[in-house]
Amino acid sequence: MTMPGFEALRDLLGKRLSTAPGDLALHGQSESHITAGLPQAVAYPETTAEVAAIMTICARHKIAVTGWGAGTSLEGHALPLHGGLTVDFTRMNRVLDLHPEDMVVRVQPGITREALNTELRATGLFFPVDPGANASLGGMAATRASGTTAVRYGTMRQNVLALEVVLADGRVIRTGTAAPKSSTGYDLTALFVGSEGTLGLITELTLRLQGQPESVSAAVCAFPDIEAAVNTVIATIQSGLPMARIEFLDTQSVRAVNAHAGLHMPEQPHLMVEFHGTPAGTAEQAARFGDIAADHGSTGFQWADRPEDRTRLWRARHNAYPAMRALRPGSAALVTDVCVPISRLAQAVTETADDIAASGIPGPILGHVGDGNFHATLLYDPASVSETATVKTLSGRLADRALRLGGTVSGEHGIGMGKIGYMQAEHGEGWAVMAAVKAALDPGGILNPGKIVPATAFSAP
Amino acid sequence: MTMPGFEALRDLLGKRLSTAPGDLALHGQSESHITAGLPQAVAYPETTAEVAAIMTICARHKIAVTGWGAGTSLEGHALPLHGGLTVDFTRMNRVLDLHPEDMVVRVQPGITREALNTELRATGLFFPVDPGANASLGGMAATRASGTTAVRYGTMRQNVLALEVVLADGRVIRTGTAAPKSSTGYDLTALFVGSEGTLGLITELTLRLQGQPESVSAAVCAFPDIEAAVNTVIATIQSGLPMARIEFLDTQSVRAVNAHAGLHMPEQPHLMVEFHGTPAGTAEQAARFGDIAADHGSTGFQWADRPEDRTRLWRARHNAYPAMRALRPGSAALVTDVCVPISRLAQAVTETADDIAASGIPGPILGHVGDGNFHATLLYDPASVSETATVKTLSGRLADRALRLGGTVSGEHGIGMGKIGYMQAEHGEGWAVMAAVKAALDPGGILNPGKIVPATAFSAP
Repeated sequence: MTMPGFEALRDLLGKRLSTAPGDLALHGQSESHITAGLPQAVAYPETTAEVAAIMTICARHKIAVTGWGAGTSLEGHALPLHGGLTVDFTRMNRVLDLHPEDMVVRVQPGITREALNTELRATGLFFPVDPGANASLGGMAATRASGTTAVRYGTMRQNVLALEVVLADGRVIRTGTAAPKSSTGYDLTALFVGSEGTLGLITELTLRLQGQPESVSAAVCAFPDIEAAVNTVIATIQSGLPMARIEFLDTQSVRAVNAHAGLHMPEQPHLMVEFHGTPAGTAEQAARFGDIAADHGSTGFQWADRPEDRTRLWRARHNAYPAMRALRPGSAALVTDVCVPISRLAQAVTETADDIAASGIPGPILGHVGDGNFHATLLYDPASVSETATVKTLSGRLADRALRLGGTVSGEHGIGMGKIGYMQAEHGEGWAVMAAVKAALDPGGILNPGKIVPATAFSAP
Repeated sequence: MTMPGFEALRDLLGKRLSTAPGDLALHGQSESHITAGLPQAVAYPETTAEVAAIMTICARHKIAVTGWGAGTSLEGHALPLHGGLTVDFTRMNRVLDLHPEDMVVRVQPGITREALNTELRATGLFFPVDPGANASLGGMAATRASGTTAVRYGTMRQNVLALEVVLADGRVIRTGTAAPKSSTGYDLTALFVGSEGTLGLITELTLRLQGQPESVSAAVCAFPDIEAAVNTVIATIQSGLPMARIEFLDTQSVRAVNAHAGLHMPEQPHLMVEFHGTPAGTAEQAARFGDIAADHGSTGFQWADRPEDRTRLWRARHNAYPAMRALRPGSAALVTDVCVPISRLAQAVTETADDIAASGIPGPILGHVGDGNFHATLLYDPASVSETATVKTLSGRLADRALRLGGTVSGEHGIGMGKIGYMQAEHGEGWAVMAAVKAALDPGGILNPGKIVPATAFSAP
């Protein structure tokens, strides 16, 4: 820590530059199975001006810079591959201003999804993107997160209106405006959303909000097979019914949930659906969905309009991940994340379930089926070389399958360290275009080197 | 036409390379008040491979290349500023494949909006983005078009899933997939949408479709003033009512429509609204909208559920542009296009109307008020130096006003030649980032030089 760049950072930040071993270790781990090296220091800026000063110093001294939100990434986005500085946005976690008439809020990147919605509660508004984890909004934008409500409200792509970004050389730019749309040049907001901290550090976000629905109606029902469940989803979408959520659980997931929560759902594929709107609207939508599901052989319908009944119904989905983990105590979990056109979803899920079953590894599947996005949770013994190899093989075959069916290797978890090996296969020459954009905006290659594109330009100091 | 680059193009395209004076003149004019030079030749490719070969030749010979769809741009996007080659996509106008289950269609860029919807009619699906003009889909993507339905269905940003693009050096890339969402790297689809032909030529588009609504309900009503109309829109959005269209006409627009179509609408600001959904849903939405509008002093409500009644109601809006032009026969029209946060819309429209009134130039205002986007149609005598200067001054003050109110100088018409002078003011250092992206993807500066960013790198052959 006597290198001149870090000395300049210490002068800038004082005690808010940490080199405590515990702090470095914390910023070298994540919720996923992925591990990497440690940062050499962690910065806790409090203002955009400080972030800009940090980047100016790091650019001058060629120090790698990795952004950190809440550490909930599943693909190792925030893990430094080349040491350097981790910029932790925990102290930049405020709501800057709220415009209820525009249904827009401006926030700092470190605020979490749950903290934002808590602050919004009294306004009748909420931020709809819900990836499950209590992620930071900066991290959610950087990884283009989505989740159960994307089928209705969109992903971060649709819900970030404008950004403030500190570039690799310390310049500060604003992308987009608070107006609902614009046609003035390249969509830099969309370029930074999903760029995983490789093009700049997000220091402010302007987000679209939604009105809390007056009425919510939810249901769960069972299907004879995967095709029947998926065909119900396709028919529902085509009928124009605006589902707020539509989640799929396969038989193995249902078994896990039953065992974990003491439930008695029939051991069949299930759909869980939710409608948001007016009382008459949600009642009509619920009835129509019931008809469509019945046409596809659904059974065991349970409807819920009261909040406590909905909580009971959705508990199965909310607790699915711990329930799955409990299928094999002590195991590690690799959570896959492909997304395909919905017409290919039944085939993709069925082939994947068959592939997993043949491997002997437990791998329950659930999905945000309205988007064609599903996750297999592969439970393996990390101490077993053969099981570790097996899950990598399964995951690779799943990625190949998604691409063969016209889909993508990541619906919502992003690239990070876990998926960079598939970028060439998915994007072809487009990956070289990404590298050209990266080189144009970060010629020194100091921003999260090794993510999205290979770290060709970067050499550690 | 004896330069080696054009000889190579002639060898490639034969009679589909035109240098006929009438053809060149046609590709040097547009629907707007803007004029520029002529291309030296016009190419009519029929395949992506031909477009790639064209770009390879033009890159080698440093020939400027401008894309051409249907010529309906209002800002001169498709007018060549540096001569060179215009690539006219008229012959690449097919539907390539339709996936009704995925509600997705893959098309060539030259197909027009109306031709696409005609082809889709039997499927129960439609493409919702409606900029008014019968634009080509390639042009709509390149300019990030929107229109009356964006408040419900989004702009081209939300409705283009994937692209095939020929880059400046002739490489062909595919961006995005047919899956509904993806988190795999930079959002190149969003980067090319709105890039106005400066980063690549779009040769294929994968578009999201919508189901034709089972029921449509429409209404028109009058308000005592602009604020009452805008506050009705704000309250309607906040209540969660999913308007398919919500259009504003100011008093001057209503006068124009009355005179042109022999109608007798009260000479007051009006809103025209449309709901799409189920019969019960649209009935409920219509009733709720009526209550909200009444709370804000609306009068003269006319509802229409039958198609012929809707056509009658919407005729006023559909014919607004010719009606406005008829206010001053022989005049030229400059159509402005700012967009602001909706909370600032009443102020923006009122200040603009006052500014126009003080100038003595007729300038009726209408707008896609659900998006905060409005257009003033400034009717001036193009032979009058002073009137021409006046409309430029009005337009400049309107752009400044939009930026001061947190908005954008173009909601949907794009930059082209008309708005490039405001780019620095709107984007600041972000404009330099756009220039860096342009230089990375088109280092020779041959793609539509002078649009979006200054044509620093380009020198004509």
